[in-house]
Amino acid sequence: MELEETIKQIKPLDHAAMESARARQDTLTKPRGSLGRLEELSIQLAGITANPLPSVERKTVIVMAADHGVTREGVSAYPAEVTPQMVSNFLRGGAAINVLARQANARVVVVDMGIAGEISRSRLKRDLLERRIGSGTANLAQGPAMTPEQAEESIQRGIEIAEAEIARGADILATGDMGIGNTTPAAAIACALMNQPPENIAGRGTGVDDEGLKRKIAVIARALDVNKPNGNDPLDVLTKVGGFEIGGLAGVILAAAANRKPVVVDGFISTAAAMIAVALASATRDYMIAAHVSQERGHKLMLEWLGLNPLLDMNMRLGEGTGAALAFHLIEASTRILREMATFDEAGVSEKSD
Amino acid sequence: MELEETIKQIKPLDHAAMESARARQDTLTKPRGSLGRLEELSIQLAGITANPLPSVERKTVIVMAADHGVTREGVSAYPAEVTPQMVSNFLRGGAAINVLARQANARVVVVDMGIAGEISRSRLKRDLLERRIGSGTANLAQGPAMTPEQAEESIQRGIEIAEAEIARGADILATGDMGIGNTTPAAAIACALMNQPPENIAGRGTGVDDEGLKRKIAVIARALDVNKPNGNDPLDVLTKVGGFEIGGLAGVILAAAANRKPVVVDGFISTAAAMIAVALASATRDYMIAAHVSQERGHKLMLEWLGLNPLLDMNMRLGEGTGAALAFHLIEASTRILREMATFDEAGVSEKSD
Repeated sequence: MELEETIKQIKPLDHAAMESARARQDTLTKPRGSLGRLEELSIQLAGITANPLPSVERKTVIVMAADHGVTREGVSAYPAEVTPQMVSNFLRGGAAINVLARQANARVVVVDMGIAGEISRSRLKRDLLERRIGSGTANLAQGPAMTPEQAEESIQRGIEIAEAEIARGADILATGDMGIGNTTPAAAIACALMNQPPENIAGRGTGVDDEGLKRKIAVIARALDVNKPNGNDPLDVLTKVGGFEIGGLAGVILAAAANRKPVVVDGFISTAAAMIAVALASATRDYMIAAHVSQERGHKLMLEWLGLNPLLDMNMRLGEGTGAALAFHLIEASTRILREMATFDEAGVSEKSD
Repeated sequence: MELEETIKQIKPLDHAAMESARARQDTLTKPRGSLGRLEELSIQLAGITANPLPSVERKTVIVMAADHGVTREGVSAYPAEVTPQMVSNFLRGGAAINVLARQANARVVVVDMGIAGEISRSRLKRDLLERRIGSGTANLAQGPAMTPEQAEESIQRGIEIAEAEIARGADILATGDMGIGNTTPAAAIACALMNQPPENIAGRGTGVDDEGLKRKIAVIARALDVNKPNGNDPLDVLTKVGGFEIGGLAGVILAAAANRKPVVVDGFISTAAAMIAVALASATRDYMIAAHVSQERGHKLMLEWLGLNPLLDMNMRLGEGTGAALAFHLIEASTRILREMATFDEAGVSEKSD
């Protein structure tokens, strides 16, 4: 679907399915509400899928990678060559996201949205989806990161990839990212949309020191000053201070919502993408599950802006979709509870005496 | 092993294995420390098992059930007959713990530590371990819940059951409970060991109303006043205000530590048992992983007293080991990261530029 049509397709949750799931929860052999967030999750999933007994058996993590011109400003602890190196690692199955996705029985889809360097081993490239918008973004500290056409195209590619995964049978999607330097555009997006100063949002990313963090905050301040992104226009924000993988992930999230599939939003980068998606279509929020609160400075504020309550708090800050892969277990637990637990009647258990 | 011998066998964590696990974490293809608590867990597990590459593949939840004379005081929202009914539900596989243990590929062991009523279907009883210390405890609001001999015997039965599971191949144990009324003895134990007033600890359990909660607090205050448990003598506390399943779970925890196996402590009841175990042998603490913080009022204080930082906060308050079964996924993730991720060398990824 085209972006405009996708946005139009995003409807409210199905309240009848939610009521039905809630009613079933209250017949299961446990005190009402005693499974807390597991119960709430199952009800949200019923609303998302319009199915009173939702399933999240078939899981896909979409990991989008791209490079960032702003790395020339010295905002990252790692050199830009690490982006293609880590993508090769994803394709060989050796990265954290591969390990955690295997455990969760989830498929990993790796997308090149605009890596600058070369992916080393050509035989691995068969498994890489090439949807390159460019060879890395321009340096957002000096001008727009991309053109408005590239911004829209990045979202469009994300929509197409998500739709292909849903057509393949995915019950639930999750977002992941790889891109050296990408906490800088993610923070800049959050600053622009929330009207927050960079020092409230920017963090250490992969691990810059005090001086590096200062430099990063100054770079974001300069980017906002040079580009003047319009916080009421998410496409303008993505164009001026975004990244190709962030646009792609916003597209994945919008397509999930338009197709009534839950989407698990990972950490800092994915949440910036989620903010773009919600700014484009506010109902998208209800289709999201926030996996975890990351250690990265502004993440908590960003989740609050979205109105999302993260499932996990594990002091993680890796990205790749690792938090989302962990959250899959909890989300699946919620659906299994709804499907597999005995009711008071079935089990012959006495109900509460009131 | 006898209790005294078990306590003697509890040794400090293996620091060499921990250093080795920590060093390996730092070679894996991710910024150092970026997997936060997953990294810490893997290091703790290495120390527990004295194995730099620990495994938690074979998982067992030990669910101990018993009844409580104090239910006669009207401290629970459910009638006491629910204890045997729910135990039948466990044996048929219809309860929340069955669902969540299946998902985690964990074995469930159900133990009758002293249920007052009858388990309905005799064919189910083949799968029930009968280690009955009595037919429910005495009413702790009027005198000691059990004799000192029963208290010690309950711990001893727990040790034996845990040792049998370890002999059978369990890599990791988790604790679960069932017993209508058991948040009252659990809260009383916590009050006695922490020297806290009941209103700081007692909560709504399975769902008593305001009046019920007031009554429960008064009952605990009376129990502490009538029995005067000695907070420096955990066996005296268990005797006077405990429960058979709580003693049993304390034994499970002690035996796990003595045999260098990790033990996942579930919610409010299990944490009271963990407090008894730590009061008997303080090194036991290092062998514990707190699954979650429950909604039950005093649980956070109890975890702080133990020095444990719970993995999950899902607003749950069911018991049965349900929080522990969810935590298994996160704990297993930590070991898989350590075993399966590629190192920087293997993956040809550049390290941090500093």
